[in-house]
Amino acid sequence: MRRRRGVVALDVGGTKIAAGVVTEEGEIPWTATCPTSQEGAGASVAQVAHIVGEAIAGSPRDLTLTALGIAVPGWVDRKLRTVWAPNIAGWDHIALEAELGELPLPIVLDSDRSAYVSGEAWLGAARGLSDVVFLAVGTGIGAGILAEGRILHGHDDLAGAVGWLALDTRFREEYAVSGCLESEASGGAIGRRAGEAASEVVRKSEAGDAGARALLGEAGLYLGMAIANLVSALNPEMVVLGGGLFQSGSFLLDRARGEFRRWAQPFAAERVRLERSALGERAGLLGAARIALDWTR
Amino acid sequence: MRRRRGVVALDVGGTKIAAGVVTEEGEIPWTATCPTSQEGAGASVAQVAHIVGEAIAGSPRDLTLTALGIAVPGWVDRKLRTVWAPNIAGWDHIALEAELGELPLPIVLDSDRSAYVSGEAWLGAARGLSDVVFLAVGTGIGAGILAEGRILHGHDDLAGAVGWLALDTRFREEYAVSGCLESEASGGAIGRRAGEAASEVVRKSEAGDAGARALLGEAGLYLGMAIANLVSALNPEMVVLGGGLFQSGSFLLDRARGEFRRWAQPFAAERVRLERSALGERAGLLGAARIALDWTR
Repeated sequence: MRRRRGVVALDVGGTKIAAGVVTEEGEIPWTATCPTSQEGAGASVAQVAHIVGEAIAGSPRDLTLTALGIAVPGWVDRKLRTVWAPNIAGWDHIALEAELGELPLPIVLDSDRSAYVSGEAWLGAARGLSDVVFLAVGTGIGAGILAEGRILHGHDDLAGAVGWLALDTRFREEYAVSGCLESEASGGAIGRRAGEAASEVVRKSEAGDAGARALLGEAGLYLGMAIANLVSALNPEMVVLGGGLFQSGSFLLDRARGEFRRWAQPFAAERVRLERSALGERAGLLGAARIALDWTR
Repeated sequence: MRRRRGVVALDVGGTKIAAGVVTEEGEIPWTATCPTSQEGAGASVAQVAHIVGEAIAGSPRDLTLTALGIAVPGWVDRKLRTVWAPNIAGWDHIALEAELGELPLPIVLDSDRSAYVSGEAWLGAARGLSDVVFLAVGTGIGAGILAEGRILHGHDDLAGAVGWLALDTRFREEYAVSGCLESEASGGAIGRRAGEAASEVVRKSEAGDAGARALLGEAGLYLGMAIANLVSALNPEMVVLGGGLFQSGSFLLDRARGEFRRWAQPFAAERVRLERSALGERAGLLGAARIALDWTR
């Protein structure tokens, strides 16, 4: 019997670390999570090393592990091999691989947005597609881009920083801190304006609350314009919408869709499909696995 | 003595057809142009066939021609092998290769914007670079995108339709016809507003004319935002600015640069270079040649 091949995959976030053993068929025979330590890089890197050890120990005996894929919420500079993740204390251009010390698997690092788009194109909403944009709208906003089946990293691994999309000529000071789109339409921005969690605004808008609908409607205008810009520039076959704001209800999605159609290049708009993420919280883990599997192929 | 390798290259525009024999070293031992016929596809396709024949006849004896590269000002659907070019009468989803009939060289078709970025990355401002955006600002606006050395075509060969970038939340009816950016900042738009050619507006602005500067300044705001969006999303190492508006004077370029820095993701903005096209009118011809050379490699 041929031994099955698999990888250890980690989705490291600002609030939790999700780990899994993932087979090349996309099964997850072992998984675990832990809350991310915010007590400095030493503590959180030790958590990563520990959970990797647990994953290796917990992996089925008949599975050959070929790599460790890690998705990080920030900037993975693949030339300098450093990681900058502003939501994890101390991850300020750290040499993550060196800090992890000796591990029995080669490490494949990438950004969470690269992982999201890889996961969705492997086993999610965009299964089997090769030209895909994943737009992640959460506390922040970013995009993973797949072009002809390859992740578009950009020259310095900074591609997909679409929270910075400029969408209104009237510049506001806050744009200089986190970008125009992110200032106008992220979950963080909506929450700050509403004085309550963005998820609560979504819930109220679904119940018909006019104030919540006004707030989300404005965000939907910016999100629709952003989707239009990505479609006009990149001509993907699908845009996958991820992050909490899109996962419940339809008011925001409908609004973004309507605006998208108004602004995008018509031929490209006609051909693209906009879909919600199918993998949800699992997109990062499965995508980190997919990237590691591709690396070792 | 090893025979040199070369291609026949055509840059087919709405006003003229430029043809050349181009060697793999980038030399152009033979070249010719003719005004593009606007009397229907039959007439202009016959011009193309005729000039190809002349190029083959005029090619140096020691050069082995391997392909015919043709750059077209519109949409080359590489799956259906059709060409749509609204500025050439009758080029309405025509099967250009079939219409050209038997030619002694394999035909490699691509859009003019793909050619521009390929030309500049081969022998122009972006020589040797692999992550490049060429922003062409002329009568219309479009972009050629090179990512990791490969042309980004998009799923339906529509990528780079950046005349459609949405850059202001206040939608205007004209945007539905040619896109927000193109309606605000193309040479055509500037000319219509000024009631004279855009080149005249550029000339006056360099002489300090306040009205011309107001018009170009507004266009520069939109162009700066557009460049910012391309840099934030794609993280290229260079954006090459092409088309007549950028080729003379510096008022528009300075204005666009300033706006670009305000809006773009700061790390990506710091690393990218904005440069004028170095090849000018030759970018399309040399790029069509580069694409044909790559195809036959």
